[in-house]
Amino acid sequence: MNIKMGVAKAGIKPSGDYDILVLKFNPSVYSAVFTQNSLAAAPVLYDRLISNLQEKISAIVVNSGNANAATGEEGYKNAERMAELVAQYLDIDKEEVMVFSTGVIGVQLPMDKVEKGIDEAIKNLTEFDLELASRAISTTDAFYKYYETTGMIDDKTFTVKGIAKGAGMIHPNMATMLAYIFTDVEIEKQLLDQTVKLVADRTFNSISVDGCESTNDSFLVVATGESGAKIDQSNKIYFAKKIYEVALELAKMIVKDGEGATKLIQISVNQALSKEEAKKVGEAIARSNLFKTAMFGNDPNWGRILSAVGQLHIDVDFSKVKLYIGDFLIYNGAPVDYDRQKAVEYLKNNREISIDLYLSRGEADWIFYTCDLGYKYVEINAEYTT
Amino acid sequence: MNIKMGVAKAGIKPSGDYDILVLKFNPSVYSAVFTQNSLAAAPVLYDRLISNLQEKISAIVVNSGNANAATGEEGYKNAERMAELVAQYLDIDKEEVMVFSTGVIGVQLPMDKVEKGIDEAIKNLTEFDLELASRAISTTDAFYKYYETTGMIDDKTFTVKGIAKGAGMIHPNMATMLAYIFTDVEIEKQLLDQTVKLVADRTFNSISVDGCESTNDSFLVVATGESGAKIDQSNKIYFAKKIYEVALELAKMIVKDGEGATKLIQISVNQALSKEEAKKVGEAIARSNLFKTAMFGNDPNWGRILSAVGQLHIDVDFSKVKLYIGDFLIYNGAPVDYDRQKAVEYLKNNREISIDLYLSRGEADWIFYTCDLGYKYVEINAEYTT
Repeated sequence: MNIKMGVAKAGIKPSGDYDILVLKFNPSVYSAVFTQNSLAAAPVLYDRLISNLQEKISAIVVNSGNANAATGEEGYKNAERMAELVAQYLDIDKEEVMVFSTGVIGVQLPMDKVEKGIDEAIKNLTEFDLELASRAISTTDAFYKYYETTGMIDDKTFTVKGIAKGAGMIHPNMATMLAYIFTDVEIEKQLLDQTVKLVADRTFNSISVDGCESTNDSFLVVATGESGAKIDQSNKIYFAKKIYEVALELAKMIVKDGEGATKLIQISVNQALSKEEAKKVGEAIARSNLFKTAMFGNDPNWGRILSAVGQLHIDVDFSKVKLYIGDFLIYNGAPVDYDRQKAVEYLKNNREISIDLYLSRGEADWIFYTCDLGYKYVEINAEYTT
Repeated sequence: MNIKMGVAKAGIKPSGDYDILVLKFNPSVYSAVFTQNSLAAAPVLYDRLISNLQEKISAIVVNSGNANAATGEEGYKNAERMAELVAQYLDIDKEEVMVFSTGVIGVQLPMDKVEKGIDEAIKNLTEFDLELASRAISTTDAFYKYYETTGMIDDKTFTVKGIAKGAGMIHPNMATMLAYIFTDVEIEKQLLDQTVKLVADRTFNSISVDGCESTNDSFLVVATGESGAKIDQSNKIYFAKKIYEVALELAKMIVKDGEGATKLIQISVNQALSKEEAKKVGEAIARSNLFKTAMFGNDPNWGRILSAVGQLHIDVDFSKVKLYIGDFLIYNGAPVDYDRQKAVEYLKNNREISIDLYLSRGEADWIFYTCDLGYKYVEINAEYTT
């Protein structure tokens, strides 16, 4: 894939590390999903407009250290200005550039620094380096997040490369989830839109660190077409699985990097009436502070799981419900006499925990991912400024 | 008010303190609201049935230390048996007795102890003592919760006495919110039902410690009629305000006793399109872990408040929104240049904090109450068993 990358240390991030990323590629089909938060940041507002107007894009620019959110008209103009600058330096149309920001909210972008940074980044374009790109967009991330895979269609190999940042939300306001996946397949925009919606639902929309949705969350997939591997109805599921693989790995990395998290928890909800119901149940468990603190304390506290389900006011018949923590059947229509000590050991000794719930209502299932809630979360989120 | 009280130390609570409470009164009009959690406990299922059948009740029995929840058929029979025992010892009908439990879930009641306790409590009936009654129903409460007031209608003085327990939720599963208010007014059941629904919505249904709803939550109001003060259309609002006063004080005590709470936070949402919207917005803020940890850290982090509102996906125009923390105008359509240090001092030096949000959409308002989220919450909820 012929993707050029430029990065710069523009001085937006307090740490002084890389905080500008520009990626340049051939005019490419793309699909993006954005935060539903009605306090959407300026770049999100700008990108939504582009999304509705533009069949192809050929560059993105990301700054970290400042979210350009809750910044009103001036903020919007600054987002637009970032696209203009990139377009000017790369000699492309402004509408071919998408803009992303992450960091502090409620503070205007230092445009002099941004301008210099974009200039410097574009003057030094190199090959796409997943780790460095990930570093340039990261804020409070404890580690850089990237992943790649390949596939083959009609003897043509294609590549899928992804980078992401995000680690829950943090002071002064919140950290954003940003994820970008690049692939060199040939695909029509409509089919890519379908694929991305499907994948986003099962990955980035099925993770919860603390239940808070950022003003800047964005997920973009770009398909350059260079490999010649053509996606159509016959192989769309195969392709969707490849995108899903990369997106899921990135999503799991974000959960693992949840503030103070010690465990990645996979909540499988089975035998629900519908996928929507299964997802809702998974999310309710993933958002329960009582459940998450119990996981932190290695406590197989099934009451908190069932109670979180009950709180949805769905007409579940708990006398038919089954619940596993790891391989331990903990509840089977009634409390089960399980080996508590062994279950505690399972929770203690594993960084990845599975919860399996069987609702006995239907055939739909969903997997939701979350992390535990410990002292560190409180420390990070309470002690930044005082 | 002629209410007789019996308490006993039946040995259900590990602490060995009082864990059975029986209250006996004249056959009285009553109104009750229960948890909406579909994993409702056995006594809640039993009481719901009574509620639908019975115009008047004349006794309640409460045990603390065991919630009789997720206990299946045997649990239901035990709840019914508690009513039977009280009815037998007091020589009244079983249907005149309401039953409540709070404590561990998923464990059957030790019925031999319960039976002895009820026997002992009823053998030693004394005058209604609010503090002792509150103590007998408490579990993880850091202090006992009771409050009383009086009113006057046509020269007739009436009394309103309330007791409550609850302090968030705790291991092994959760603590319940129980609240009982006794008054000696004369009122028809239908009017009392209306009043209780109204009051419950504005008090116990407008508090959040950790967003988790218990399997046993119950709120009961009993009107004995002994004062002769008669409630009708002309004075129903006056009466509702008296019930509200007692219920609100009890509700605030529960929030103050939130696990590890250092602050009671009153979130006033103004200028919403509807009361439902105002309540939803208040609840969204009250449930945001990011907001609650910021309050713990004395951080006037307005971005987290607005972002919690945005997460509801309501079409709020943030360029018209105003936000106060205490007396400090923090956001006025855009970030305001306020005296941050003074706002931090305000948060640091007060146990009761007010947040005032103006949505600029309509005329409806609502007040929601919550507490901050600190280390102690994690400690209490994670470290019980390991």
